[in-house]
Amino acid sequence: MEEARLLITCPDRPGIVAAVTGFLYAHGANITDLQQHSTDPEGGTFFMRVAFTASHLDLARPALERAFQEVVAERFGMAWRLAFASERKPTAILVSKPAHALLELLWRYRVGELPMDLRLVISNHPHHREEVERFGIPYHHVPVEGGKEEAEERILTLLEEAGVELVVLARYMQILSPSFVERFPMRIINIHHSFLPAFAGANPYRQAYERGVKLIGATAHYVTEELDQGPIIEQDVVRVSHRHGVAELRRLGQELERTVLARAVRWHLEDRILVHGNKTVVFV
Amino acid sequence: MEEARLLITCPDRPGIVAAVTGFLYAHGANITDLQQHSTDPEGGTFFMRVAFTASHLDLARPALERAFQEVVAERFGMAWRLAFASERKPTAILVSKPAHALLELLWRYRVGELPMDLRLVISNHPHHREEVERFGIPYHHVPVEGGKEEAEERILTLLEEAGVELVVLARYMQILSPSFVERFPMRIINIHHSFLPAFAGANPYRQAYERGVKLIGATAHYVTEELDQGPIIEQDVVRVSHRHGVAELRRLGQELERTVLARAVRWHLEDRILVHGNKTVVFV
Amino acid sequence: MEEARLLITCPDRPGIVAAVTGFLYAHGANITDLQQHSTDPEGGTFFMRVAFTASHLDLARPALERAFQEVVAERFGMAWRLAFASERKPTAILVSKPAHALLELLWRYRVGELPMDLRLVISNHPHHREEVERFGIPYHHVPVEGGKEEAEERILTLLEEAGVELVVLARYMQILSPSFVERFPMRIINIHHSFLPAFAGANPYRQAYERGVKLIGATAHYVTEELDQGPIIEQDVVRVSHRHGVAELRRLGQELERTVLARAVRWHLEDRILVHGNKTVVFV
Amino acid sequence: MEEARLLITCPDRPGIVAAVTGFLYAHGANITDLQQHSTDPEGGTFFMRVAFTASHLDLARPALERAFQEVVAERFGMAWRLAFASERKPTAILVSKPAHALLELLWRYRVGELPMDLRLVISNHPHHREEVERFGIPYHHVPVEGGKEEAEERILTLLEEAGVELVVLARYMQILSPSFVERFPMRIINIHHSFLPAFAGANPYRQAYERGVKLIGATAHYVTEELDQGPIIEQDVVRVSHRHGVAELRRLGQELERTVLARAVRWHLEDRILVHGNKTVVFV
Repeated sequence: MEEARLLITCPDRPGIVAAVTGFLYAHGANITDLQQHSTDPEGGTFFMRVAFTASHLDLARPALERAFQEVVAERFGMAWRLAFASERKPTAILVSKPAHALLELLWRYRVGELPMDLRLVISNHPHHREEVERFGIPYHHVPVEGGKEEAEERILTLLEEAGVELVVLARYMQILSPSFVERFPMRIINIHHSFLPAFAGANPYRQAYERGVKLIGATAHYVTEELDQGPIIEQDVVRVSHRHGVAELRRLGQELERTVLARAVRWHLEDRILVHGNKTVVFV
Repeated sequence: MEEARLLITCPDRPGIVAAVTGFLYAHGANITDLQQHSTDPEGGTFFMRVAFTASHLDLARPALERAFQEVVAERFGMAWRLAFASERKPTAILVSKPAHALLELLWRYRVGELPMDLRLVISNHPHHREEVERFGIPYHHVPVEGGKEEAEERILTLLEEAGVELVVLARYMQILSPSFVERFPMRIINIHHSFLPAFAGANPYRQAYERGVKLIGATAHYVTEELDQGPIIEQDVVRVSHRHGVAELRRLGQELERTVLARAVRWHLEDRILVHGNKTVVFV
Repeated sequence: MEEARLLITCPDRPGIVAAVTGFLYAHGANITDLQQHSTDPEGGTFFMRVAFTASHLDLARPALERAFQEVVAERFGMAWRLAFASERKPTAILVSKPAHALLELLWRYRVGELPMDLRLVISNHPHHREEVERFGIPYHHVPVEGGKEEAEERILTLLEEAGVELVVLARYMQILSPSFVERFPMRIINIHHSFLPAFAGANPYRQAYERGVKLIGATAHYVTEELDQGPIIEQDVVRVSHRHGVAELRRLGQELERTVLARAVRWHLEDRILVHGNKTVVFV
Repeated sequence: MEEARLLITCPDRPGIVAAVTGFLYAHGANITDLQQHSTDPEGGTFFMRVAFTASHLDLARPALERAFQEVVAERFGMAWRLAFASERKPTAILVSKPAHALLELLWRYRVGELPMDLRLVISNHPHHREEVERFGIPYHHVPVEGGKEEAEERILTLLEEAGVELVVLARYMQILSPSFVERFPMRIINIHHSFLPAFAGANPYRQAYERGVKLIGATAHYVTEELDQGPIIEQDVVRVSHRHGVAELRRLGQELERTVLARAVRWHLEDRILVHGNKTVVFV
């Protein structure tokens, strides 16, 4: 049974849910899940995700989209998009030396928990080739020693040739240039190994150790031009104490990084995330 | 601005959301929150909570309810009810000796976090009178020494005279008879000091200590005829270790009991809970 | 049975535990709990807390302290102190308008969970008088409108007259001057309503809302000259989402503030905290 | 630097810590970590774990053990053992079809987080051979179709030939016979996919779904003759709601199973667990 998802953002006013669900019902869609949120019913912004079975639609996709635009979207000034579960997003993973986040994604990908079309893995290190190729995924080693610009250019070419729409930074330790980020607006997910906004930048575990915090965290966020400042998708923490040195913080934090990144990527792949300003609405 | 909530349970089939939201829109309601759930889009049960501002309805409440029944509810075989935020539920708290859960509810009531109409507190102990009366709430001491049946009869009379619709057992250590429970179906909330179904019955902290669990819990549930077997509304846990004796488990557990019970009561008062079989759907 | 606690900080080297426990055994102490920590067994700093029953000591306290200094402490270059559970620390609570943290402390004090000698409550608002005096605790209203310096002077006088050794800021919204802080080094505990170092300063819930974090926190710390920069004693977090506005963050955060502050105060009262640089070692 | 650990259980009475640490100091050990616990200082049971660097001991191991037995252990009636970090415990993993717990252990083993000597993996399914052999670990497929007794006999032979001391059941779905369990007292660790004692036995996720709990858990415990009744080593939980069907509970629960089992195995390998009756003392 084909599942489709309709994602909507528009100024809030009466009648939106009725109009959207009435339209879907009239065209043979059976709603399986509906979630909505309004920042303020009086003059705020309205967000909605409707999941529905698309097996009995009375129109083909282009006609349905045209009709929705004309009948509903224009009336309410909607920004919207329609996604089908069967159209898995072409995805690339970028990774540096630490393998834990990469492996977590690969393993969940294999058991079917991450419904992506994983096209390639790119790293500035050669180490993960065997591991990645075992999963049948092409591995590209793009060293940065020859120049960061050249490396980024090479990566962009690889991503474009592969038709990639989502880039996952699974502990990729190179800072991406603004022009790179611009090419994938709200389509680059990074895992930062701290509870942002605390300990942005380099060596967050050392920073956490030196500040003496009693919990450490990990944050998955969309990448924007400003380092570690993009919309937060998911965060989690784990308790630590004076007994934990930097190495123990790293070990405990890696567990967090793995699960937090995997959650964020899954939500993106399932079209559960709407971005509003520098924040996310996540319908889970 | 008057807030109303419509709660619906019915067999799932296409068109429910469109019918309900179309009806509300047609009658001047502005939806502020909508949550729905289906156990299975094919032949399952459908649940929905719609919150809307009722300030500009075109019909008075009885006419609106009649219209909804005729136009929507009958067509889909709905069990449904309409609640208004301004109609605070007449509530009684029953409590035995430990005061922590009672105090938590009283504090939150006073600061406006529990939108109930608290009519009385009943206890089989005289101890809490001063504390309760300070809040302007009548306190009734109903001892059980004279016979459990007589006590229950006396409590029932007090509840009826006060027009109570919700009974909160804030660590009330007497088991209620089936005939009592029957009078308040899914309208008695109990806090049990364990992570149910583990450690049902008496002395759960001692049971937990003796089993050597590494987390202890608390469970808020609706009371049914079978002890500690009713639909679970909310649960939470806290980490413990070999260092914690029974007294420490009790101290740590009391924090849980307070917050878990307060959450469950608030959700009930805000009409966020639908019961299905022996389980709850909680729209938070 | 009298409980005593010996707290030690010194350069780490072999033989410390043997020397301390041998001394205690020789003088009739029965160790009930021993915890130690070393930042590095080679040249690091060593911390220890030993709890023991002092009922059968062969020396009176002054003689015991003198002997310990001569026989053990000097040999290892120890900073140390001896505390007796029966000597409850004279404590003051400072509070502004929000009552939740104050009430939590009062209630736990009454049921015996906070072994302090609570001597007075001081507030820049008159509101909590009745509540506090009910517990038999003097309440002093010290307004700041007449000048911050005068107010601080007045508070200092009150604290000194009452012989206070521990000052708890239970949401006291005035910034204390460096000279005030100096009078109570590592003896002022503040609750900050964020997960420090994130959202230091004013309006942390609004800051958290605007950054769009997925967890909010609370931090109990010792007050030092720099605002919100002192050694962290305890932190905790709670999950939030796009559904929570600033008011809901505040409501959820207040639960955290209450429990986090209560834990920190209890640990201080039980002599479980050692400060090292700008960090704490907490033996729980 | 060689790390050694001394684990002690004995009746509590004054002088134990002094005697043990005095002995260690006298023989050139430098204590790096000491943790102790008493069920009751008056007539209870005392537990201690002392970690120390063994590089400068004045006696060889057998002589040291003899001396400790004579000088200290006999005097206090101690059960004790000495372990060296360099002597990694010979370990076997038993697994059925689900691979998640096995993979987690293999990954952590490879990156050095599980200091075991992993000698073999045994499964009643052939599926994991390639995965396991990639890590250089022998894989044995022991089907149970030919008879459970024969299979168990075959497994025992494999374990004995490999000199295994620790058996980890990483979701091994066969019940072990009492005679098998007897061969490895407190040396078989199982992961059960529920928060024990709730939902012991088969299909815990389905049981949890049907009871409508709001948190699901996982429990690592030592295996004893009675199914799912052995001493609990570690537990953890994750929040769920009415939105989660059995498949989602399973997916969420697998994350828990992985981390909870990995923690328990690490603690065992680091000699952090003492068993007392049907409970554990875990020094972490």
